[in-house]
Amino acid sequence: MSKCLYFIFLLAILPLNLRSQDGYDLWLQYYPIEEATLRENYSTQIQGLITYGSGATLDAAVSELEKAYAGFFDASIPTAISIKENSLVLGTRDNLPAYVLPSLEGEFTKINSEGYIIKKIRIGNTPATVITAETEAGLLYGTFRFIKEMQLRNAIDKISITDSPKIQIRVLNHWDNLDRTVERGYAGFSIWDWHHLPELIKPEYIDYARANASIGINGTVLTNVNASSVVLTSAYIEKVKALADVFRSYGIKVYLTARFSSPMESGDLETADPFDPEVKQWWKDKADEIYAEIPDFGGFLVKANSEGQPGPNNYGRSHVDGANMLAEAVAPHNGIVMWRAFVYSEHDPDDRAKQAYSEFVPFDGQFHDNVLVQVKNGPIDFQPREPFHPMFGAMPDTPLMMEFQITQEYLGFSSHLVYLPKMFEEVLDEDTYVQGEGSTVAKVIDGTLSNKKLTGIAGVANIGTAKNWTGHPFGQANWYGFGRLAWDPYIDSEEIAEDWLKMTFSKDKDFVDEVSEMMLDSREAVVNYMTPLGLHHIMDTGHHYGPGPWVGNLDRPEWNPVYYHRADSLGVGFDRTTTGSNALAQYAEPLREKYNSIETTPEQYLLWFHHVPWDYEMKNGKTLWHNMAAKYQQGVEEVEDMVKTWNEMEEYVDEERFATTQMLLQIQLKEAKWWRDAVLLYFKQFSEMELPEFVPTPEHDLEYYQSLEFPYAPGISPSWH
Amino acid sequence: MSKCLYFIFLLAILPLNLRSQDGYDLWLQYYPIEEATLRENYSTQIQGLITYGSGATLDAAVSELEKAYAGFFDASIPTAISIKENSLVLGTRDNLPAYVLPSLEGEFTKINSEGYIIKKIRIGNTPATVITAETEAGLLYGTFRFIKEMQLRNAIDKISITDSPKIQIRVLNHWDNLDRTVERGYAGFSIWDWHHLPELIKPEYIDYARANASIGINGTVLTNVNASSVVLTSAYIEKVKALADVFRSYGIKVYLTARFSSPMESGDLETADPFDPEVKQWWKDKADEIYAEIPDFGGFLVKANSEGQPGPNNYGRSHVDGANMLAEAVAPHNGIVMWRAFVYSEHDPDDRAKQAYSEFVPFDGQFHDNVLVQVKNGPIDFQPREPFHPMFGAMPDTPLMMEFQITQEYLGFSSHLVYLPKMFEEVLDEDTYVQGEGSTVAKVIDGTLSNKKLTGIAGVANIGTAKNWTGHPFGQANWYGFGRLAWDPYIDSEEIAEDWLKMTFSKDKDFVDEVSEMMLDSREAVVNYMTPLGLHHIMDTGHHYGPGPWVGNLDRPEWNPVYYHRADSLGVGFDRTTTGSNALAQYAEPLREKYNSIETTPEQYLLWFHHVPWDYEMKNGKTLWHNMAAKYQQGVEEVEDMVKTWNEMEEYVDEERFATTQMLLQIQLKEAKWWRDAVLLYFKQFSEMELPEFVPTPEHDLEYYQSLEFPYAPGISPSWH
Repeated sequence: MSKCLYFIFLLAILPLNLRSQDGYDLWLQYYPIEEATLRENYSTQIQGLITYGSGATLDAAVSELEKAYAGFFDASIPTAISIKENSLVLGTRDNLPAYVLPSLEGEFTKINSEGYIIKKIRIGNTPATVITAETEAGLLYGTFRFIKEMQLRNAIDKISITDSPKIQIRVLNHWDNLDRTVERGYAGFSIWDWHHLPELIKPEYIDYARANASIGINGTVLTNVNASSVVLTSAYIEKVKALADVFRSYGIKVYLTARFSSPMESGDLETADPFDPEVKQWWKDKADEIYAEIPDFGGFLVKANSEGQPGPNNYGRSHVDGANMLAEAVAPHNGIVMWRAFVYSEHDPDDRAKQAYSEFVPFDGQFHDNVLVQVKNGPIDFQPREPFHPMFGAMPDTPLMMEFQITQEYLGFSSHLVYLPKMFEEVLDEDTYVQGEGSTVAKVIDGTLSNKKLTGIAGVANIGTAKNWTGHPFGQANWYGFGRLAWDPYIDSEEIAEDWLKMTFSKDKDFVDEVSEMMLDSREAVVNYMTPLGLHHIMDTGHHYGPGPWVGNLDRPEWNPVYYHRADSLGVGFDRTTTGSNALAQYAEPLREKYNSIETTPEQYLLWFHHVPWDYEMKNGKTLWHNMAAKYQQGVEEVEDMVKTWNEMEEYVDEERFATTQMLLQIQLKEAKWWRDAVLLYFKQFSEMELPEFVPTPEHDLEYYQSLEFPYAPGISPSWH
Repeated sequence: MSKCLYFIFLLAILPLNLRSQDGYDLWLQYYPIEEATLRENYSTQIQGLITYGSGATLDAAVSELEKAYAGFFDASIPTAISIKENSLVLGTRDNLPAYVLPSLEGEFTKINSEGYIIKKIRIGNTPATVITAETEAGLLYGTFRFIKEMQLRNAIDKISITDSPKIQIRVLNHWDNLDRTVERGYAGFSIWDWHHLPELIKPEYIDYARANASIGINGTVLTNVNASSVVLTSAYIEKVKALADVFRSYGIKVYLTARFSSPMESGDLETADPFDPEVKQWWKDKADEIYAEIPDFGGFLVKANSEGQPGPNNYGRSHVDGANMLAEAVAPHNGIVMWRAFVYSEHDPDDRAKQAYSEFVPFDGQFHDNVLVQVKNGPIDFQPREPFHPMFGAMPDTPLMMEFQITQEYLGFSSHLVYLPKMFEEVLDEDTYVQGEGSTVAKVIDGTLSNKKLTGIAGVANIGTAKNWTGHPFGQANWYGFGRLAWDPYIDSEEIAEDWLKMTFSKDKDFVDEVSEMMLDSREAVVNYMTPLGLHHIMDTGHHYGPGPWVGNLDRPEWNPVYYHRADSLGVGFDRTTTGSNALAQYAEPLREKYNSIETTPEQYLLWFHHVPWDYEMKNGKTLWHNMAAKYQQGVEEVEDMVKTWNEMEEYVDEERFATTQMLLQIQLKEAKWWRDAVLLYFKQFSEMELPEFVPTPEHDLEYYQSLEFPYAPGISPSWH
């Protein structure tokens, strides 16, 4: 059979998206458009590409268009030297010919500096599709959007889209160590091959930048917040520069974590006191050294006086003192400082959930203009479900940026299919009421609630050397979804799931309907089989793998699960009401009042705010114990449904990704049962009530579950050893 | 342009082997055969595949044939239900129809149990190609060989090949830790994803097995010799079983490293004394437990009483006592024990190079039949060049297996292009003279010198999660070459290089000639720019990255480079003659005599055996100092030639692998200069002679080179922290 015949034969029996693949291409898969009329229509609409202007970012946009066109049409994209019928015109506002602009003036009023316009217009009498923006970055985003429209098989003949990011700083936080281990990383080694930099530029670096640019991520913090000062030495700055040079073309700035004690470790000062002139000078000089190599360096992310990290408190100075000193060092270069509010102290007897608020809110308004305070979504630590962090809305005169965790430290590592945008959306939509109803967390983050000049959002990356980047094929959806919500915190997570599925797997409606529903339900499933009804932080300690509600022997009280569930013969849950730690006082009314009473507290936060009797009768007339058991059982059954759903999808998915997901779902099911059995057996000792009949008899006894040890569970970096 | 036209167009401008690729396919690349007559000829010769017998290994062979045929001809391999003209017949001797055998009787006398026969014969009047063997493993090897003939584009119409492995145990040693770091690993994380086993079977596991089977490797030791007893717990045995189940079909047995103190750590005994009945019983039970899950488990590899590892000496017992105890535990299951001879003690004031011999040779003949003593190629530790280990030939009544290091711990990590088979060949060809001339190391290893029943060879793997498995594209050649030499320790390393290049990159003669020469020269280049003239172990300590001849502050004397070069105002080198440590007494005559005099010692071993005056006049009439400088300079120039050679190969190699190799060669050149400058500046202090004019002025002064620190150099596993 001739090669030509063979290809036709192959394509006949096997759509390209069924060819086995390792998932490396993420959502940037440009399958041939097989539907003839659509194919015809698209190619008619793209008669000749013509670009105005020049520069690395424009080149990146053009090269992406070439890739996509070659994938869609198995041919090189036609180019034009002048605008003719159905040309595709690319250029920023400043670079477009004057006669193109008139019909776009209206659109330009709708976009900001990173926004874009994609519009089919008439230039004179010539119809053409224009992609334009104020900046080259916007142009790149518009190009990816135009390609996406074709990936989704949307009509483009009358295309008219304007869009702009609602948040300025959209960054990934890599908790990557310089030895290439990744703290809380479950997708292999760090993709940053420091040893071979600056000489060796890996293709992964470019594809990482393409993927991020395609969803609008415009910054990356390369190093772990538990930082090493070595990254600030000149040898490493040269390595960082090599990465910055790659990412620049894709509109991505590079940031580093700054270890507060660096002047003593990487420099040779006696102190790191932010009030010490030599220390200030050291940071100024260091910033100058970095910016000399990387003119568009983004700035620093700092974890200070938290979990053993050094910080200004070591010298009796405040977080403001520390943050402002660094801010002054980078300010001349338009750099920023992202200062984490994730602080809590074993010396503070107060409820851990209250400490960040107590420590930071008094400083509202005292941080320099180029400082962002980075706050985790919840007051404890990236749990399957937490109420929103009370700092959101509580510091009107300080730019707060959101920190989400994309890597699944507390949500099943890279083994569990959990669609996180559903959780991100829940947090962003929560109403802080600080300025009355409608004061959502999203409005705090995008700055609209109190007119912030500087806004930002960060996601702790789930990326590693795994061939498919994230380990779990569906982990890619969390990276993708974070980017989409960073661009626009108001989009529906369902839309995001559908877009991702269509671009990543298949456009078949049955597949997309079934699997998007599975994804959307997956978040509640993990809450149910791990920490339902407001339970939190009862996972095993250190590695956070599996259940460990019984752990109570760690030095720091707030590192022990027993600290969080407080189970006893009377009941279970953390009383954070006025009769307890009164953490709810950190929320605005009417939330305070609502959470202060068991009756009005939403069941999903019940044990977060209340210590509830085991026999407390809940809305459904059943006891708390019965409901807790029911939730755990429900979680297991929801995973069983996910297994069933996926097993029916074989016809839509390539062999490798289908089988991998299928095997991983078996791990998820096994671990969901493990959670149910271990936690219920543990709490049963306190409730002294029988397991409801709908819960299968646990496979093992409590002693067995308590005896399990996982010395090599992934994601623990040397900084915790 | 239609898809069909486009493909033809694409193929016209771009042979498949130029399509950019990440190197994941290794040497198993089945490009379409574009040469029309050859294509015609091959397909005529393969009219219909017919197999006799059944089993997983036969299935593996068939599936490989299908892959290869689809790649060569873009079509499915034709099958036949009975032998017809030009059938391809596959089956073991026992399974082939009786009427096929007569014309093969002669061949069967030439092969052993793992050997194979590939022969074009007439069955009755029907010409057919038969691939047969005594065992299914042999059948698989024959299949890969048949495919290789087509990869090399050799004629197959009169094919007649018989081949058998000359060594029985051909294993890779993975120094992989259970936390997925790899000791002395420079290709990323461990490919063993322990956390997701046994459920998640990655495609890499199967492709790893295919690659090994294709070169005849029949065993893999999954874990680091600096071992964790956790791998012997039942939870991990279940994980190991999952891998064994994958590898079994490819004729690969799984082995584990046994930490000698496991009965105390993984069990709860008070002691690990090999004479303690409970300890013996613990190991017997553990072996039974493993074999119940993995009936063909290979056995244990043990590093005992070496570099801090526990062992029988801790209890006043000998290596024989320890090895035999473990041997008794696995003997009932036909398991073996590989006991490493890599021992040296800081308490032994004697020359480290002598210690292994002194400790093991007295035990010759006392090890059980299922014990192999595993000896490194040289008496120190995988240096760029060492004389062969004196134990080879010195224990006629003990099976000695060779341990080569494929990972480049002392040879430039994964940054340097160094073709190791050239070095392996040098060692195997060395003459021990123990039974007169011709008593080569190869003959010791393959057992022919003293009729060993059990023979083996091990290679410390250079494999990791790097997309191309080995990091450096040419690192694959070292994995491939080790396998080829393990199968036949007498093949020419040049032939291996040419085979690998043709299967991996291009069959173009100009390319193969140029690049194979570059590969063959690369080993001498690294010796020249790192440790010429018999210098050894002068690299920086701990991570072994870069030069560190000045290091002399480590507690253990034999961990200090100064211990090995002994430079002083009089000269440089380690006197191992009768006037010195007399290490040469461990070699047979005439080597002893030859090495005892400076004049008769080959220059490549000069400073290994002698402390030589700086002004000693060498064969070329120049001083030692002049010659040392010349060697370092030559090494740098040889790398410059490699750079030039590779730059001319762009037309033959795909973009990704070409660019990656080009960038890595720049690192190699930079580091070669670093070595030259740092070492010469250091020794210059002692020689008090000027650098010859042909050596460029060093870029920095000695203090600079001595100040360099690499806290995050790769390959140091936690066991060294």
